Amino acid sequence: MKIGLIGAGRIGKLHGELITYHVPEAEIKAVADIHINQAEQWAEKLKLSKSKLTTDHTAILKDSEIEAVLICSSTDTHSQFIIEAAEAGKHIFCEKPIDFDINRIKAALKAVKAAGVKLQIGFNRRFDHNFRKVRELVEAGKIGDVHMVKITSRDPAPPPIAYVKVSGGIFLDMSIHDFDMARYLSGSEVEEVYAQGAVLIDPAIGDAGDLDTAVITLKFKNNAMGVIDNSRQAVYGYDQRVEVFGSKGCVEVQNDVPNSSKLSTSDGVISEKPLYFFLERYQMSYVEELKAFVDAVINDKEPQVTGNDGLQPVLIGLAALKSLREKRAVKIEEVTG
Amino acid sequence: MKIGLIGAGRIGKLHGELITYHVPEAEIKAVADIHINQAEQWAEKLKLSKSKLTTDHTAILKDSEIEAVLICSSTDTHSQFIIEAAEAGKHIFCEKPIDFDINRIKAALKAVKAAGVKLQIGFNRRFDHNFRKVRELVEAGKIGDVHMVKITSRDPAPPPIAYVKVSGGIFLDMSIHDFDMARYLSGSEVEEVYAQGAVLIDPAIGDAGDLDTAVITLKFKNNAMGVIDNSRQAVYGYDQRVEVFGSKGCVEVQNDVPNSSKLSTSDGVISEKPLYFFLERYQMSYVEELKAFVDAVINDKEPQVTGNDGLQPVLIGLAALKSLREKRAVKIEEVTG
Amino acid sequence: MKIGLIGAGRIGKLHGELITYHVPEAEIKAVADIHINQAEQWAEKLKLSKSKLTTDHTAILKDSEIEAVLICSSTDTHSQFIIEAAEAGKHIFCEKPIDFDINRIKAALKAVKAAGVKLQIGFNRRFDHNFRKVRELVEAGKIGDVHMVKITSRDPAPPPIAYVKVSGGIFLDMSIHDFDMARYLSGSEVEEVYAQGAVLIDPAIGDAGDLDTAVITLKFKNNAMGVIDNSRQAVYGYDQRVEVFGSKGCVEVQNDVPNSSKLSTSDGVISEKPLYFFLERYQMSYVEELKAFVDAVINDKEPQVTGNDGLQPVLIGLAALKSLREKRAVKIEEVTG
Amino acid sequence: MKIGLIGAGRIGKLHGELITYHVPEAEIKAVADIHINQAEQWAEKLKLSKSKLTTDHTAILKDSEIEAVLICSSTDTHSQFIIEAAEAGKHIFCEKPIDFDINRIKAALKAVKAAGVKLQIGFNRRFDHNFRKVRELVEAGKIGDVHMVKITSRDPAPPPIAYVKVSGGIFLDMSIHDFDMARYLSGSEVEEVYAQGAVLIDPAIGDAGDLDTAVITLKFKNNAMGVIDNSRQAVYGYDQRVEVFGSKGCVEVQNDVPNSSKLSTSDGVISEKPLYFFLERYQMSYVEELKAFVDAVINDKEPQVTGNDGLQPVLIGLAALKSLREKRAVKIEEVTG
Repeated sequence: MKIGLIGAGRIGKLHGELITYHVPEAEIKAVADIHINQAEQWAEKLKLSKSKLTTDHTAILKDSEIEAVLICSSTDTHSQFIIEAAEAGKHIFCEKPIDFDINRIKAALKAVKAAGVKLQIGFNRRFDHNFRKVRELVEAGKIGDVHMVKITSRDPAPPPIAYVKVSGGIFLDMSIHDFDMARYLSGSEVEEVYAQGAVLIDPAIGDAGDLDTAVITLKFKNNAMGVIDNSRQAVYGYDQRVEVFGSKGCVEVQNDVPNSSKLSTSDGVISEKPLYFFLERYQMSYVEELKAFVDAVINDKEPQVTGNDGLQPVLIGLAALKSLREKRAVKIEEVTG
Repeated sequence: MKIGLIGAGRIGKLHGELITYHVPEAEIKAVADIHINQAEQWAEKLKLSKSKLTTDHTAILKDSEIEAVLICSSTDTHSQFIIEAAEAGKHIFCEKPIDFDINRIKAALKAVKAAGVKLQIGFNRRFDHNFRKVRELVEAGKIGDVHMVKITSRDPAPPPIAYVKVSGGIFLDMSIHDFDMARYLSGSEVEEVYAQGAVLIDPAIGDAGDLDTAVITLKFKNNAMGVIDNSRQAVYGYDQRVEVFGSKGCVEVQNDVPNSSKLSTSDGVISEKPLYFFLERYQMSYVEELKAFVDAVINDKEPQVTGNDGLQPVLIGLAALKSLREKRAVKIEEVTG
Repeated sequence: MKIGLIGAGRIGKLHGELITYHVPEAEIKAVADIHINQAEQWAEKLKLSKSKLTTDHTAILKDSEIEAVLICSSTDTHSQFIIEAAEAGKHIFCEKPIDFDINRIKAALKAVKAAGVKLQIGFNRRFDHNFRKVRELVEAGKIGDVHMVKITSRDPAPPPIAYVKVSGGIFLDMSIHDFDMARYLSGSEVEEVYAQGAVLIDPAIGDAGDLDTAVITLKFKNNAMGVIDNSRQAVYGYDQRVEVFGSKGCVEVQNDVPNSSKLSTSDGVISEKPLYFFLERYQMSYVEELKAFVDAVINDKEPQVTGNDGLQPVLIGLAALKSLREKRAVKIEEVTG
Repeated sequence: MKIGLIGAGRIGKLHGELITYHVPEAEIKAVADIHINQAEQWAEKLKLSKSKLTTDHTAILKDSEIEAVLICSSTDTHSQFIIEAAEAGKHIFCEKPIDFDINRIKAALKAVKAAGVKLQIGFNRRFDHNFRKVRELVEAGKIGDVHMVKITSRDPAPPPIAYVKVSGGIFLDMSIHDFDMARYLSGSEVEEVYAQGAVLIDPAIGDAGDLDTAVITLKFKNNAMGVIDNSRQAVYGYDQRVEVFGSKGCVEVQNDVPNSSKLSTSDGVISEKPLYFFLERYQMSYVEELKAFVDAVINDKEPQVTGNDGLQPVLIGLAALKSLREKRAVKIEEVTG
């Protein structure tokens, strides 16, 4: 299966490498990026000949040998590229979020449906070994009815202020993964959101109109509750834990660590900090999501993260923003447009 | 130091035993209970002669040898007994909550102040080895500025419906310990509360006008945030964990277990459930709080849990109730009367 | 049940306190010690009147109200006092080891048998919550046939050299607890011993003719194997862990800690060191062994640690000494005299 | 750097795949195996053209483009192939053990030295994330002087009896990894060995002249001690843990697990079993050892596992066998021939 890669920034390059080294069923046939020259060295290392590189993503869409595209360009191009790719009959893997604008997302999903192509959204954490196990246990009924979902999601360090300004804000940039996780783990839709936030780490983040610390409370359709806590700076490393509590029990997962060493001295017992950031922690989840996408295309399966799975977290994020401003619980239906 | 015990129900009896066996500096001189005959067997076991038992708590207040009283009677008698004891010049240890009514609490605190006696409120969890360590680490600045306090507090099984009806509701009966814990661990006052709740365990609890599952979000004066999650039924046992996150790190404590055994078989790796309920988990905290009270009286120190520490959690509980009804964040100042 | 305490050194005093505060069915009627004046303050704290104190242990043996004695005097007096107490018809709790001399032990056990009194040896660790659970799981067949018993037993700091000189050596003073534990956990008798040792901590220990570090390998009657590792100095605290491995699984227990705090900072994740030494770690096991002894006497049960349980570990210790000298495996039957 | 692979059984195939997918600096130029037709499908998957496959390992040795060989053929061919490869001027990576015969090992090492080529032995566990960290901490002096090394190494299931018969016995087949680990972790040479073993799992293993359970005690040159416990069958999975104890502390590592899930129910708290076997547990260590070998060749470094590192564990194994037969401690110098 031949794949065209649109966008060769950090995440695009990562996907290109993973396809090449870990997904034998697929290969990168072409790479498009408006700054394609910045990807030449990388392409060489991957043994992608120069002829496969282009600044023009439509070249990929026109290539009849290419069955699928990975859209890894900037967020503002996602919905447009989805529409174009769908119209060109390509299956689509698109990075999250699809868009910050609900109507543009809906237009993209409509185009996908009309074309009958597959669309998978890049919520890679669903493929993490820990969270996947939690989902399996919940789905198997091991904890009974879900009463509560708790998600801790803290970055090791804030992004550059320049990035903060175009990020869409903490809810749409960072919490969005957790909104998806909440739906994934509970198997339920979110009905209502209450968000609370503060600038406790860096005043410059506040000056940029954003928050760096947040607690978001969710109410699911089945009356279960969810709590997400976010921070842009956990000095001990990437803190990614979840817990699901229900009528028959509770399941929780901890952070991954580089090794299990425990050093006992007269000063105390010291063990390792969590893996530093998403590239370390979620490396295998990126492999797994690409394998799942290739499998969905080759074997004509429903993708494991659908277009609706791309839409819902954006809705939750918009509800969170509204809740923060109005200091009250906001229903998802208030923001569906 | 001679002590009079007012109220010899479950918690009163426990305090009587702990004073006798674990606090050599103090002894129980008299016990008053309106159903004192139900305490006779217990008193015998403790080698308390029958002459020390009475149905009349004023007998204790008139006994000039008695320096302090432990008020362990039903909640509706607390504020009245505090006033009487203060006027009689006795130092007072009073079970939580002081009262459900703010004005009655204030009247009680006023009487204590006027009499110049000591008052300690029975928030025993402050004396738990785990939570105390968290407090010490926070106080020592090990996690820097506090950004977030997370408290999980779940009972192993719901109380009888008859109890639910007179309990004051989940916020004032159960969460009140967590409201105190939030203040204790953060070292800050709560400014605003958002509460969410549901009946997910037993419809009869809902019929009694109460909730069995709740998530409460706090905003502290210093903009830090708190999250409390409560359930009346964790089938695996008493679930009592906290985490405090800050600018320089994070500290968390786990549940206590009866032993550290880990059994690995072909079925998995099995370890012990948490200690069943508060009598098991918090046994030593009850000893410690009584030792602290006796120490405060003998050595003329400020009690470690003051009258204001008794008032604030009730205010937070009332704000939580108001928040639940109005589906919005409620400031503490809205309920201070 | 009235008890006479013979020997009021550190361990004797501890037993006296535990009986007084934790075993309501029993009371200390008399205390004998050759330096009884050094115990007066302690006795006062325990509200033991001065008339109960004596330098003459035979006064206790003659007291017809006293049903049982706790022998907590120095090891060289144990076997003689056991014989005297047995002849006086007293039930006996005796600290470990009974004696360093096999023939004297045998004489003592013979006297006990002849008198028909109960004898319990002070291997308190059998009553530890962790080890007891391991034993229960093994006994319940949860790990199938026992193949291997592993015991780690390390002190936080070496004893004074003066003590080392009269201690009987590391095998009879320290490892003896582990020899008992090996028998207790496996439910089997030891058949053969191989011992290896070194002086790695303090040359003065070597000068005193002893070792400070040892590894002892055991072969049980059923061909299972045991490994004990001992050190006189684990700088991080008292290290007391065991593991039993078998045909259906493995059970292990960890050290007890003062609290479960885990502090994550940029320097790493820090948790608590083990409880410092035996008084902290095994406090409750001392209570439990005394309760079990009192229960055995009152309810006429077989003591949970018998005279033979006192003999066997001494045999294993003597075999270990012989093995060390001869650099070969030594059978228990070679040292039974 | 072009590599020739000699032997395309399970481990040879694994190395071929890892070189191809994980070591961009190297590529497999040719594969030799006496049953090369059984490797054709595998080669196709790896996109190795048929022309690269041969039954004749000398074809690889004659290929001047090939800089290094991976010797993954059966143990009885190792020393001969090392000699041939050395004489052909190829750098050599050879699977463990080099040989069961000391003189043949010596001859091989002599040839390597004479030819001036590099030789790395396949003790992959040195490259495991956990054990490597232990080594680093020991080397950095974090635990002070080493007093004790403890290694638990248990397979999930015994090999087929046919394999047992040609395996060289448990000490040379299985414990050999642990002998290497003991030297690696302690940084010391072993001086003396005492071995104890039994047939507790399958009588057929005993009939084949081998053991299935063993405890081996080591004495290092610096008087430190080591303990290795081995079992051919841990029903809960591959059990691979180590602990190093010293004058300033202790470091231990636990088993790796597929995920960190902890499920609490009324039945207990259940977590995951260890990763099943060496392919799962040590996958990344195989990648790391190959990277290290390629790095040693390209950058002309001393290999991290030398020829002497291949010799010493065989000596320890032979001493263990002798100890078992003679029921006494055996010095390494007794078996050096």
